Amino acid sequence: MSFTYHRTVRFRDTDAAGVVYFANVLAICHEAYEESLEISGINLQDFFGKSSLAFPIVHSSIDFIRPMFCGNKLVVSLIPQKLTVDKFEINYEILIAEMIVSKAVTRHVCIDTNTRQKNKLPSHMVKWLDTNRKDAENMERRKSREFI
Amino acid sequence: MSFTYHRTVRFRDTDAAGVVYFANVLAICHEAYEESLEISGINLQDFFGKSSLAFPIVHSSIDFIRPMFCGNKLVVSLIPQKLTVDKFEINYEILIAEMIVSKAVTRHVCIDTNTRQKNKLPSHMVKWLDTNRKDAENMERRKSREFI
Amino acid sequence: MSFTYHRTVRFRDTDAAGVVYFANVLAICHEAYEESLEISGINLQDFFGKSSLAFPIVHSSIDFIRPMFCGNKLVVSLIPQKLTVDKFEINYEILIAEMIVSKAVTRHVCIDTNTRQKNKLPSHMVKWLDTNRKDAENMERRKSREFI
Amino acid sequence: MSFTYHRTVRFRDTDAAGVVYFANVLAICHEAYEESLEISGINLQDFFGKSSLAFPIVHSSIDFIRPMFCGNKLVVSLIPQKLTVDKFEINYEILIAEMIVSKAVTRHVCIDTNTRQKNKLPSHMVKWLDTNRKDAENMERRKSREFI
Repeated sequence: MSFTYHRTVRFRDTDAAGVVYFANVLAICHEAYEESLEISGINLQDFFGKSSLAFPIVHSSIDFIRPMFCGNKLVVSLIPQKLTVDKFEINYEILIAEMIVSKAVTRHVCIDTNTRQKNKLPSHMVKWLDTNRKDAENMERRKSREFI
Repeated sequence: MSFTYHRTVRFRDTDAAGVVYFANVLAICHEAYEESLEISGINLQDFFGKSSLAFPIVHSSIDFIRPMFCGNKLVVSLIPQKLTVDKFEINYEILIAEMIVSKAVTRHVCIDTNTRQKNKLPSHMVKWLDTNRKDAENMERRKSREFI
Repeated sequence: MSFTYHRTVRFRDTDAAGVVYFANVLAICHEAYEESLEISGINLQDFFGKSSLAFPIVHSSIDFIRPMFCGNKLVVSLIPQKLTVDKFEINYEILIAEMIVSKAVTRHVCIDTNTRQKNKLPSHMVKWLDTNRKDAENMERRKSREFI
Repeated sequence: MSFTYHRTVRFRDTDAAGVVYFANVLAICHEAYEESLEISGINLQDFFGKSSLAFPIVHSSIDFIRPMFCGNKLVVSLIPQKLTVDKFEINYEILIAEMIVSKAVTRHVCIDTNTRQKNKLPSHMVKWLDTNRKDAENMERRKSREFI
C-alpha cells in the first residue's frame, strides 16, 4: 500500500472564504512527506536543519478539485519517484471520504548545503524512494487485479 | 486526566533560527482546543464558520521555556475554565519528553456573530467547559494523593 | 508597464533551512494579486469575503530558481490573462536585484458562492484583466523596441 | 515620533471567521520589529540567521480589541525598552484609521547561539533600543504639551 498521512483541517489552515487557503494545501502535502521520511528512520531535525545535504523543491504544481473545510478529515497518499541521480518527484493525492479533493507534485533536487551544488542522492534517500515506490506499485497491482 | 493533544513539529512551523516561530506555538495550542471541541461532539466547520455564536480570543499570553525543533513530539495539555457567563479561559502546557517547553493562555468571549454583542455561553460550551475542567481537577487530585 | 508589487521577505516566511518556505512563495504571489485588485478599485474585504461571486484557484504551479532569505527585497510582477468566459490565469515573476528567483502561475475560475457553479466573469474583473494585460503588452513592446 | 510600520491585511492572514487569525497578529507585530531593525542599519539575513547572538522571545502577550479584515490598512507603532543587561521588551499598538485594534508585548533575551547561554546586549541593539525609545519619549512629551 502507498504511504498515507491522516490530517484534520485546522482553523489556521482556512481563510476568509471559509476553506483551506490554497498555498496551505501544499504545506499539508509536505507534512505527509515529512511523516514518511520519519517512518523510514530519518531524523527530521537533522534532515531539515543542519545536514550537509538538502533536498529543496525546485518545482511544484497542484490541482484543487473540491474545497476543504475546517474539521475535514484528510487522507494524503504519497508516491515518490527517482528522476535522475540527483532528482526525485513526489505525487500526492488528498482525499476526503474516498473522494479526491486535490492532487499535487513536488520536485526535489539534492544539493550540498555548503556549495549549493547538485549532489548524488544519498543511500538513505534511495532507500526511502525504493520502499515507498514499491509499496505504491503493489497497491496499483492489487487495484488492477480487482478489476479482472 | 486533562485533555492532551499529540502533535509533531512540522517544517512549516519553523523559522530561519531553526526552531518553531513564536506565533506558531499559539497556533499549535489552538489546534489542541479544536481537537478537544471535536471530541466533545462539536462540528468544527459550523463552530468556526457559519454559526450564530462565535468565541473570539480577546487576550492571549505565552511563555517560551525551551526551543522546539522540527520533528519534536509535542504533548499539549489543555485546561479550560469558565470566567463569567460570557467568558472563558484556556490554560495550555506543551511538553516534550515530560519536560515543559511552553505555557500559554487564551481568553475567549462569546458573541452573537450578527450583532457582535456579548452573549451567554451556550449549553454545549458549558458542557465542554465542565467536562474538561472536571477531568483536570481529577488529575490534580490524583497528583496530590501521590505526595501523601 | 506590468504591475509590480514590492515585498520584503519576513522572518515568518522562512523555515529551518534558512530560506523562504516553498508554499509561502505562492502566498507572496497572491499578495501581489490582492494589491493589483485593490489598485483597480476593488474592495478586498468584500472580494475575499461576502461577495456573491468568488474566484477560487483551481490550479497553480511554481518554479524555484534561487533561494530567498530574510530581508531580501522582492519585486513581484504580475500578468493576468483571460482564458474563457469564466476562467483566467495569472503569471508571476519574482525578482531580487533584477535576477529572477521564482516564476509561478495561478488559474482561477469564477463561481457563484451560493451554488458553487461556474459563472461568467463580472465586468469589474474583465476591466482588471484588460488593464493589467495591456500594461504588460506595452511593456513587452517597449522591451522589443530597445533591441532594434 | 515612535517608529510606525504600515501593513495591509492579506488574505492569508485571515481565517474562516472572516478576520485575521489571532496568532497572525503577533506575526504582524514581529514584522514591525524587523522593519525597525532594518532601518537602524541591521542586516536581517544575518540577524535572524547565522549570527553568533540571537534574541529569542521568552514571553508575549496580546489584547484583541477590534477585528481586522482583509484589506484593512494597519499602522503598527512600536516602543522598545531595555529591561536588564540581557533583556528587552517591545510594546506594540495596532491602529486602523486612528482606532486602536490590538496591543501586544514581546519580551526578548539575548543569547549566545552556540552555548544558548544569556549574553549582554551588543552595542548595535543598545543603539537600536536608545533610538526608538527616545523617539517614543519625544512623542509622549509632545502629546502631553497638547493637553496643557
